[in-house]
Amino acid sequence: MILRELKPMDYLEPEELEKIHQAVLTILEKVGVEFHSQEARDILKKAGAKVEGEKVYFPPKLVMEQVALAPSEFTLHARNPENNMVIGGSYTVHAPGYGSPYVMDYVQNARRNATYEDYIAFTKLAGSSDNFDVVGGVLVEPNDIPDKIRHGKMLYASVKYTDKCLMGSAMGEKKAQESVEMAGIVFGGVEEVRKNPALISLINTNSPLQFDPRMLGALMVYARNNQPMIIAALAMTGTTSAVTLAGSLVQQSAEILAGIVFAQLVNPGTPVVFGSASSIVDLRSGSLAIGSPESVKMFSVIAQLARYYGVPSRGGGSLTDALIPDAQSGYESMMVIMNTVLSGTNFILHSAGLLENYMTMSYEKFIIDDEMLGMIKNFCGRFPVDEDALAVDTMVRVGGGGNFIADEHTFKHMKDMRIPIVSSRQNYAGATELTDTAQRAHEYCKQVLQDFQSPPFDEKTEDELNRYIEKLG
Amino acid sequence: MILRELKPMDYLEPEELEKIHQAVLTILEKVGVEFHSQEARDILKKAGAKVEGEKVYFPPKLVMEQVALAPSEFTLHARNPENNMVIGGSYTVHAPGYGSPYVMDYVQNARRNATYEDYIAFTKLAGSSDNFDVVGGVLVEPNDIPDKIRHGKMLYASVKYTDKCLMGSAMGEKKAQESVEMAGIVFGGVEEVRKNPALISLINTNSPLQFDPRMLGALMVYARNNQPMIIAALAMTGTTSAVTLAGSLVQQSAEILAGIVFAQLVNPGTPVVFGSASSIVDLRSGSLAIGSPESVKMFSVIAQLARYYGVPSRGGGSLTDALIPDAQSGYESMMVIMNTVLSGTNFILHSAGLLENYMTMSYEKFIIDDEMLGMIKNFCGRFPVDEDALAVDTMVRVGGGGNFIADEHTFKHMKDMRIPIVSSRQNYAGATELTDTAQRAHEYCKQVLQDFQSPPFDEKTEDELNRYIEKLG
Repeated sequence: MILRELKPMDYLEPEELEKIHQAVLTILEKVGVEFHSQEARDILKKAGAKVEGEKVYFPPKLVMEQVALAPSEFTLHARNPENNMVIGGSYTVHAPGYGSPYVMDYVQNARRNATYEDYIAFTKLAGSSDNFDVVGGVLVEPNDIPDKIRHGKMLYASVKYTDKCLMGSAMGEKKAQESVEMAGIVFGGVEEVRKNPALISLINTNSPLQFDPRMLGALMVYARNNQPMIIAALAMTGTTSAVTLAGSLVQQSAEILAGIVFAQLVNPGTPVVFGSASSIVDLRSGSLAIGSPESVKMFSVIAQLARYYGVPSRGGGSLTDALIPDAQSGYESMMVIMNTVLSGTNFILHSAGLLENYMTMSYEKFIIDDEMLGMIKNFCGRFPVDEDALAVDTMVRVGGGGNFIADEHTFKHMKDMRIPIVSSRQNYAGATELTDTAQRAHEYCKQVLQDFQSPPFDEKTEDELNRYIEKLG
Repeated sequence: MILRELKPMDYLEPEELEKIHQAVLTILEKVGVEFHSQEARDILKKAGAKVEGEKVYFPPKLVMEQVALAPSEFTLHARNPENNMVIGGSYTVHAPGYGSPYVMDYVQNARRNATYEDYIAFTKLAGSSDNFDVVGGVLVEPNDIPDKIRHGKMLYASVKYTDKCLMGSAMGEKKAQESVEMAGIVFGGVEEVRKNPALISLINTNSPLQFDPRMLGALMVYARNNQPMIIAALAMTGTTSAVTLAGSLVQQSAEILAGIVFAQLVNPGTPVVFGSASSIVDLRSGSLAIGSPESVKMFSVIAQLARYYGVPSRGGGSLTDALIPDAQSGYESMMVIMNTVLSGTNFILHSAGLLENYMTMSYEKFIIDDEMLGMIKNFCGRFPVDEDALAVDTMVRVGGGGNFIADEHTFKHMKDMRIPIVSSRQNYAGATELTDTAQRAHEYCKQVLQDFQSPPFDEKTEDELNRYIEKLG
């Protein structure tokens, strides 16, 4: 959990933000959002929304009243209470990659299907580093596990190999319900989980301006059980949203607010996060361009809009369009995640491992992104400006033309510096070989996995959880 | 020239900045700065500074009065007036790498001495891209050119192959004088150059708390000729400055202010830039760690301090400790330069090409950094939030579940997007081979050099300049 000591960057002027907000209200009231669930539409209609067919039209008053019920920050509970996380305010939490069906094999230099073994390995990497706060969900897609029990096996791996905060399944009502029940097993009962929310889940809108029945089913289960949700738009400019950044932001915000309003109507006070994984599309090729500066601008404004609406934000990640962990992978990922953090984003999914926009996870990229997160955490933590740090006495002692190396002040503070994990600080003359960062990350990753030790996990609970998961099949 | 439309990031709180300022005044008054030049000390003494041996002690009143004489922004003139640059305010200008004795050979994967041929090639690269505003100076060190004429040959190449703003030599009084005379040849007389400053030069302090005679000699020439100077500290924490960031910043600021005060005393109103190339040192190895977050914090505060003193700032660059243009080179360079720009730095030296801290230039890294500068320029330019961009009508037309691709609004704006030069947006399935960014940069660089065309340059002026340079030998 990063405590950002810097004021968040406001990308837009207040009057520009207000224009976006007014357009959002217009879209919600006049264009409407399709809710592909009769149950959802009934709830919305009862609350005063106008419903025509599958379309729901939101009066501005209803929107603002309901959004105001969502908490501006909340605590997500981990099975180790030391790992509880605050979502909101000046905090930024990181979760690793999410949803990739593929893994990049460094040795073969080729992409392959992700497996449950990968899922476990990435979970161990996330568990081993202080830079990750939330694990679970679809860290990678374990294609070799039958769909019916996949969410169970993923939750099991997350609980077994870490004691950090967890994500739940958003794949429909049934899996959401089962996720809540499994959390109940781990946290001493579903009642306990309702009191102390323990699962955060990713509810995606279906752009433009729709919610599909699967997501709505999951949303209702989590809301009724008081479990936090990221309501997120994944709009692609020029295809599933307007081509202009402002237009895309209007549409995204309308979708997200519609979801937030609905969650509050299901259960007032449900913790929600205002989220985006949207990107521009390179219309020459039709590809996403998630490592582009334009996409970062959208993430930055999403964080600002969330502050405007008084709810936590989600955006960004260590995002790149590169296919291998090379220079592009480095500069794009750093640009996106640094600015997402500086913009005050509270929850950053996809913080590590992704290549090829959201398609592929890479072990080497995961380690490299872990390094970047450490650098960003350091940058966001300010440095002391007190008498000792100002060091006037030290300068008096050393004087003009002197050397500080032997001074007691240097000795006292020489360990204040951040030590990198894979970045090289060798000079050319001293280097025996010119290793690539990906190569060093490959070695580092092997070592972490080899040295890995699971946190303690109560055997009885583990058995009970496993029996539950077996029955899902 | 980037017009930053975002407010600069203030890293420190106002009261912290004030503490640094007070400590700076204490250092200047009580510890003093060594000026290794009798002429310089005489000027300072006459103005009211206390001089003891080589040491100069500055009364606070003298410091603040003289700093107030320095302009908050000024124009640097190019031989093509379209390329004139404003230094200060909301503008950020970029100059490529400076001072590297080595070049990294991509094909051989080995470092070698830089030559004049490299100097010319890098000048052509900087001339070909809109992202570079200032060329010249020691873009790389042409080791094969005799020292006596080196500054002349460097200025010649800069004027011949570009029509952008220029840097002068800071290697002592004689070379500075010759730089001014050569600028006179190019710009229609030394008087013209004095009226419309055309050379910006880099005056480095000699940390801790010294100015060497060579730099002071150059400083006096440029000040008397009204040519702008970057007065810059290159402190290394724990060796040539205090180990703490606050302490190092105090010392750097004291050195820079001493230089600025002196420049104003030589010629009131001389344009100066408050500059830093300082870095933390990794005390495990004694190496600079210029790609570290700690070093970025110092650059950020340097920009803030410059605003406090009302003068333009210099810091940062596409800086890395990596030896090859790999992931580390990408993430470190992006972190440093993005934050230096967001912090409101006005002049960014070392904007492209550097590897191995300041030691080595790389053609591939140059192209990669050029790409990064384009991304940052895009990020710093805001996007329209007007009726057309908000696109409410477009959303009404396309509606829920529709596709924007065929809409007229998409057609109208599809070219607003930035097109990368070497970043890949291919997906894995569509890629015939997995090329590294450095590889693509290598090819791109060859093409730029092959297609290069010099801007027009008056033959008579060229002859005169060449005759002048010949006589230097």
